[in-house]
Amino acid sequence: MIKNGNRIEELQIAYIGGGSRGWAWGLMSDLALSPELSGTVKLYDIDKEAARRNEIIGNRLTLLPESQGEWRYEAVDTLEEALRGADFVIISIVPGTFDEMASDVHTPEKYGIYQSVGDTVGPGGMIRALRVIPIYVQIAEAIKSFCPEAWVINYTNPMTLCTRTLYEVFPEVKAFGCCHEVFEVQKLLADMLADLKGITGIRRDEIKTNVLGINHFTWIDRAEYDGKDLLPLYKEFAQKYYKEGFTKQKKEHWMNQYFDSAHRVKFDLFLRYGIIAAAGDRHLAEFCGKAYLGSPEDIAYWKFNLTPISWRKENRIRLMEQSERMVNGDEPLKLKGSGEEGVLQIKALLGLGDLVTNVNIPNIGQMSGFPLDSVVETNAVLSQNRITPVAAGRLPAEVESLVLRHVANQETTLQAGLHQDTNLAFRAFSADPLVSIGVRDARDLMQEMLLNTKEYLPGWELG
Amino acid sequence: MIKNGNRIEELQIAYIGGGSRGWAWGLMSDLALSPELSGTVKLYDIDKEAARRNEIIGNRLTLLPESQGEWRYEAVDTLEEALRGADFVIISIVPGTFDEMASDVHTPEKYGIYQSVGDTVGPGGMIRALRVIPIYVQIAEAIKSFCPEAWVINYTNPMTLCTRTLYEVFPEVKAFGCCHEVFEVQKLLADMLADLKGITGIRRDEIKTNVLGINHFTWIDRAEYDGKDLLPLYKEFAQKYYKEGFTKQKKEHWMNQYFDSAHRVKFDLFLRYGIIAAAGDRHLAEFCGKAYLGSPEDIAYWKFNLTPISWRKENRIRLMEQSERMVNGDEPLKLKGSGEEGVLQIKALLGLGDLVTNVNIPNIGQMSGFPLDSVVETNAVLSQNRITPVAAGRLPAEVESLVLRHVANQETTLQAGLHQDTNLAFRAFSADPLVSIGVRDARDLMQEMLLNTKEYLPGWELG
Amino acid sequence: MIKNGNRIEELQIAYIGGGSRGWAWGLMSDLALSPELSGTVKLYDIDKEAARRNEIIGNRLTLLPESQGEWRYEAVDTLEEALRGADFVIISIVPGTFDEMASDVHTPEKYGIYQSVGDTVGPGGMIRALRVIPIYVQIAEAIKSFCPEAWVINYTNPMTLCTRTLYEVFPEVKAFGCCHEVFEVQKLLADMLADLKGITGIRRDEIKTNVLGINHFTWIDRAEYDGKDLLPLYKEFAQKYYKEGFTKQKKEHWMNQYFDSAHRVKFDLFLRYGIIAAAGDRHLAEFCGKAYLGSPEDIAYWKFNLTPISWRKENRIRLMEQSERMVNGDEPLKLKGSGEEGVLQIKALLGLGDLVTNVNIPNIGQMSGFPLDSVVETNAVLSQNRITPVAAGRLPAEVESLVLRHVANQETTLQAGLHQDTNLAFRAFSADPLVSIGVRDARDLMQEMLLNTKEYLPGWELG
Amino acid sequence: MIKNGNRIEELQIAYIGGGSRGWAWGLMSDLALSPELSGTVKLYDIDKEAARRNEIIGNRLTLLPESQGEWRYEAVDTLEEALRGADFVIISIVPGTFDEMASDVHTPEKYGIYQSVGDTVGPGGMIRALRVIPIYVQIAEAIKSFCPEAWVINYTNPMTLCTRTLYEVFPEVKAFGCCHEVFEVQKLLADMLADLKGITGIRRDEIKTNVLGINHFTWIDRAEYDGKDLLPLYKEFAQKYYKEGFTKQKKEHWMNQYFDSAHRVKFDLFLRYGIIAAAGDRHLAEFCGKAYLGSPEDIAYWKFNLTPISWRKENRIRLMEQSERMVNGDEPLKLKGSGEEGVLQIKALLGLGDLVTNVNIPNIGQMSGFPLDSVVETNAVLSQNRITPVAAGRLPAEVESLVLRHVANQETTLQAGLHQDTNLAFRAFSADPLVSIGVRDARDLMQEMLLNTKEYLPGWELG
Repeated sequence: MIKNGNRIEELQIAYIGGGSRGWAWGLMSDLALSPELSGTVKLYDIDKEAARRNEIIGNRLTLLPESQGEWRYEAVDTLEEALRGADFVIISIVPGTFDEMASDVHTPEKYGIYQSVGDTVGPGGMIRALRVIPIYVQIAEAIKSFCPEAWVINYTNPMTLCTRTLYEVFPEVKAFGCCHEVFEVQKLLADMLADLKGITGIRRDEIKTNVLGINHFTWIDRAEYDGKDLLPLYKEFAQKYYKEGFTKQKKEHWMNQYFDSAHRVKFDLFLRYGIIAAAGDRHLAEFCGKAYLGSPEDIAYWKFNLTPISWRKENRIRLMEQSERMVNGDEPLKLKGSGEEGVLQIKALLGLGDLVTNVNIPNIGQMSGFPLDSVVETNAVLSQNRITPVAAGRLPAEVESLVLRHVANQETTLQAGLHQDTNLAFRAFSADPLVSIGVRDARDLMQEMLLNTKEYLPGWELG
Repeated sequence: MIKNGNRIEELQIAYIGGGSRGWAWGLMSDLALSPELSGTVKLYDIDKEAARRNEIIGNRLTLLPESQGEWRYEAVDTLEEALRGADFVIISIVPGTFDEMASDVHTPEKYGIYQSVGDTVGPGGMIRALRVIPIYVQIAEAIKSFCPEAWVINYTNPMTLCTRTLYEVFPEVKAFGCCHEVFEVQKLLADMLADLKGITGIRRDEIKTNVLGINHFTWIDRAEYDGKDLLPLYKEFAQKYYKEGFTKQKKEHWMNQYFDSAHRVKFDLFLRYGIIAAAGDRHLAEFCGKAYLGSPEDIAYWKFNLTPISWRKENRIRLMEQSERMVNGDEPLKLKGSGEEGVLQIKALLGLGDLVTNVNIPNIGQMSGFPLDSVVETNAVLSQNRITPVAAGRLPAEVESLVLRHVANQETTLQAGLHQDTNLAFRAFSADPLVSIGVRDARDLMQEMLLNTKEYLPGWELG
Repeated sequence: MIKNGNRIEELQIAYIGGGSRGWAWGLMSDLALSPELSGTVKLYDIDKEAARRNEIIGNRLTLLPESQGEWRYEAVDTLEEALRGADFVIISIVPGTFDEMASDVHTPEKYGIYQSVGDTVGPGGMIRALRVIPIYVQIAEAIKSFCPEAWVINYTNPMTLCTRTLYEVFPEVKAFGCCHEVFEVQKLLADMLADLKGITGIRRDEIKTNVLGINHFTWIDRAEYDGKDLLPLYKEFAQKYYKEGFTKQKKEHWMNQYFDSAHRVKFDLFLRYGIIAAAGDRHLAEFCGKAYLGSPEDIAYWKFNLTPISWRKENRIRLMEQSERMVNGDEPLKLKGSGEEGVLQIKALLGLGDLVTNVNIPNIGQMSGFPLDSVVETNAVLSQNRITPVAAGRLPAEVESLVLRHVANQETTLQAGLHQDTNLAFRAFSADPLVSIGVRDARDLMQEMLLNTKEYLPGWELG
Repeated sequence: MIKNGNRIEELQIAYIGGGSRGWAWGLMSDLALSPELSGTVKLYDIDKEAARRNEIIGNRLTLLPESQGEWRYEAVDTLEEALRGADFVIISIVPGTFDEMASDVHTPEKYGIYQSVGDTVGPGGMIRALRVIPIYVQIAEAIKSFCPEAWVINYTNPMTLCTRTLYEVFPEVKAFGCCHEVFEVQKLLADMLADLKGITGIRRDEIKTNVLGINHFTWIDRAEYDGKDLLPLYKEFAQKYYKEGFTKQKKEHWMNQYFDSAHRVKFDLFLRYGIIAAAGDRHLAEFCGKAYLGSPEDIAYWKFNLTPISWRKENRIRLMEQSERMVNGDEPLKLKGSGEEGVLQIKALLGLGDLVTNVNIPNIGQMSGFPLDSVVETNAVLSQNRITPVAAGRLPAEVESLVLRHVANQETTLQAGLHQDTNLAFRAFSADPLVSIGVRDARDLMQEMLLNTKEYLPGWELG
């Protein structure tokens, strides 16, 4: 990497995963739209074909006339090839296939346990974590060997345990996890200002928020626009739309149907706890036991959706076909900003302008009341070659208690995953608020789920 | 009170409550059997008739030939009369009637929530706490006014919140809570030594235990007999009796049927967490959500009992009749040691011999990892006019997490009760692991339960 | 205050103190050089004449052709007049006169205690704090009454206790303390890069530092330029100049003679503790007992200076004469950036661009290992109407111990000052590392110093 | 070891050190006076001749008609021989000779630093610690190898660092440190009751105290006799005898002259801090910098003594001569209770009766506000095969700060000793409140002291 004033050349990025496409193309666009940056992106995916298609698409995107940075994409065969010389490592993988994910999400339904996503906490998130931990152990060791000074950006879920595993294995790693869920809440606050105050055109990054918690169960205890406190307004907003929910008038898009909500869970949580729950309702609900996930009817009442794996499979086919068309030239390529912050973060870390945003990193004190070293999500200042979390303060006692039980479970899951320990795994599994079933059923359920995913659990003794 | 060498004369004890009889008679017997003590017991109960009957019974007991201490029992009409001049205050009340308790225990069954006792945590324990808090506020203020130097022994449940309220209102109070649940586990360990090692005749106080946690969810991480570690043996014991449960051969007694268990919950918890859960299975189960309380069948499987309020009502009639007979002289009075430690504790605090036992008092550091000032149960040294908790150390992470969520709920419940705050009450109510139902149902349930008990909730606005 | 896009109009600033001139003129210049800002500055000083002179000078400065913001200066007679309607409050006062300061600095010399400044810790700083506390109690109450929403910037020493008192009296105050000592160390690091690497022209704000500690005893455990770690270079630098000291070639200026040093104390502390002590040597030395202040010869050896009060008095006359000439028009007025950050901070808080800089505010967790609520100095993000400290992490154990004893002393001094408690005052006084004398002498010394300053100690009983 | 009811037979005790005699003879007497115990004491000392003399004396003592326990004393040649099979290990050694101790105590006098004992903190205590650490590393490893289940009682100074080293090297060690300084303060409180209230004949163990702090800088914040608070009385006592000091009328004995004091330091500390400093004045003074140790005149004013090493050398000769006479039969042997608690502690750990007393063990929470694992002195319950510290609570803020700086220094000293690190050693050395001299002098002094003791500092690079 070479820095010439405000231009960075020969930057080297390792992209691990990305075969699932959406994320990768967004990043490619964002890179192409950054005049200050140029370099090479090495694509590594266990699905080599997917990596090769992305190579083709990336190299085409960079040739578009509106493309500003010069980038070369190169699919590689090994993790080592991707990592050697990397300045940045981006990780966005799927642990296992959608078949394993189907087990994560749907097996618990036999016991009346519904999960809207199944990739963070709950029985599904926990089993997914057990799959992801050995993969991240391997990645962490490779980073330690091949690019210990690189910055590592994680997008994989479960975010907390992916990031936590990297630090556990290689404590000096310069890694952080990124998630756009808080952004969506900032957008909601902007929509609120339009709805209640007629102030339109506000960008989500003009809404200033103090973020506390853990990924997908983050909270906002201060929010301001133009220096004014937004919490009293949010109370009004939550009360106004509590019953009906709030939906922004917008073009319907198939992609949104399973991810959208009417924010009723968020409103209910606000009215209960007095601060803003800051993630999508689908994610929030999974941390709250059966409160919003009692039954399919319950979920419909709260106006959010379960995300069936069948949809993910269909969507994957659509993306593959789209990828095919893009590779074949049947679909014109377009540069379009992703709205994600990945490239802004890279620029900040390269010294091209500080950025304050929310990231997932180990707790050095930014979350008072949380154990040190657990991975938390708060704002941080990203500046040249450094991330410094802000001191976010402390959650209200009742919210803190809700969050801390998940932190405890995640730490136990980490140890279970590192040591292939079924007993520890069950401590975490049975303590999840969604696993509110008899302990015998819980044992059976966990065993079934582990067996369904056993291919990805090397070293485990599974009966 | 006058101390003559090892004899204490003119000791004054205020007994608040006790109309429910069993506890009172046990204490009366224990006092009568203590040659070192004599004095007056002032009996105050809102059921004045009950107090008067106890007065008669107490005075008769003291006349029995085998009685050694000289005691005078006196029913009084006001709290003030009971407390003025008291050296010790014993509190053992029932907040509300069995009708309110029936609501505590049985209303949640409509939503599939079963409670084996309903007086500690869970929806029932929490509503009971709301009833008890204003009563204890009043008692604490009276103690502050009339006998601030007295030692206060609490037997009422919910133990933690009764004791906590006393300290919140009058921080200098010299109060502690006592409970015999740990004793029963020490007896079980003695039975284990008989069963596995053939060592018989061990008294439960010869089993040395380190106690950690909160009342009815206490744990033992070290247990010794004759200096030998009992945990490896307990593992063997738990495995041996895991399936069938362990029942000591003993005379069947009606009183035991609802209180007994086969310890299967305890064995399961031990095999899951590696340390000994130290309370009756009925109590332990209530802290663990649906794990052992999924359904009546589940409960039968785990071999413990729900305690229906109908039984309590019948038992009460039996006790009233017995009381009648004792007052009328139709039933001969007998002195019989209660097996409780109350009088031993009184003696220790009077300087007649140190005692190390488990008590419930505010945390000054004895429970590492727990918030200061929350009421915890650990061992303490009782010596003349002083209780000093021992540093009990820290629970294993997963157990700590299970216990801390209840500590947080109890603190919230206290604030809800002190401020008659429905919103705070619902934070605690909905966070209880047993309230694993939709948030709408939870709201309905709490509202119904509050209304059922509203006579005992002065100052609350209940829709 | 009116915000028009990026222009702020009708801003109202209360300037409390400032009669000592230097600081006030710098701020006036900085305001005049800020095209985005205009408004009114209300000047309040107990020396009304000084305020009136500053009014004249300020209004003249704003008329200079190169002046960009439109400002009106107005001397007022009461604190209330200054504060009513204020958006910002700037406090820069001298507690007592130079006679009291002479006692602070020189009385301890009778006992062999030398102080290089005498305004922060040590016997002088502590007695100064006792004078300043009642004044800040009064200011805090006035802010609470007249402008509770205003931002308050404190420049008075002792910085920590001034800021701490504001928060103690009015916990919602939006106050922070500013100090340029860390800037000087950033400049030293820039000089180091020139000296060792030939890289010149680096601005001090291009040196990125992580700041930890308390005012005048701050430390830097990470420092970077262009993303590169500067600590290894600083080690080289400290070793190279350890013996001779480092002095930048620059025009000699009388003002610098007492404030300058050759950084030998800093180098010695670095070689002892491995991180950078980040304040002037005169300040650092006072926190370290006799290590660098054993005798005048010792001080000369370490190449820094004691600052005699006689010099301050002479300097004050020079400034008064200069003020006279400026008022009379005998000395031409010039606008000249002060190098201070006050106006940058005001702009950031007005929403004109975030700023990361070091400030003194209560600890909400930014300094791990320090008591909550104690005032600490770390970096913070200043943004619109908000200051968010960054999580600075933790000092090495030995440095932490050195700093924490001063934190403890400051908390005791605060209580002593608030309650006029001589016994508490002596606990703090005698625990200062500089007061390394017999306890009898220490009592005599404190008593003499208190009597010397008794006019400023209302409510104290001083024998 | 065999337990027969209340009799313990074939107990095996390893006595490490003891060549300095006084301690050893006391223990031998106490053992002989214990009818419940019998067994073997293996004596190991690097001065083999001393061990052999003790063997002879011990075996003679056990033959005295009034001797009740049957003991066999056996001098052994290796640590291993002493430890193999041991149930208890008693360690009471002198690290180095009196020549090294002379350097510890007297070398600092060149710089005006006076030490009344020189074996705990201060420059002397710290250098002594560096000698003792490698010896205790060796002992800890031997215990781990040869008797890992044995209870280890340490009497060597510096108590804290000896005990701390054992736990650092072998965390499972069952070790504790014992010191009689608190007992002396309990005796003083008994004398106070005689002096002020005419209550005589009170045994020191009837005075109940809550002990907080570290060895030789312990504090008592609650003290009671017969359930009554003694602190108000102690205030009266301290004021009455503040000027003249308090001396009990007793037979003069040469042994006491250097160890005695008039308690003026204790009284002064009480009047300053409101709680009782609980060690001899000679020890307390050394923790307080120059407060009571400014000069020999100062020390005389406070009515305590420096303990010159010349006296220790002479005393040693006296003890050797006495030993000689005892071995030769020229001096009749007598059994006389030592007043120490060692044998009581042994009995308690053998299950012959609980004992609550003050011991030095790692902090598991018994000292709130102190770092975990640092060795602290509080009360503990000694029972069969277990020591459980009581939760002692927290020191007042100002006292806590005074004590914590020594805790920090001790931790640094430990690391310096374990890693032979001169730089770390100087951090601790220079931070000691007594080392209140210029940093250059401090370096010279430490270097000289290290060289004087270099024979006992294997692995150190000392210029």
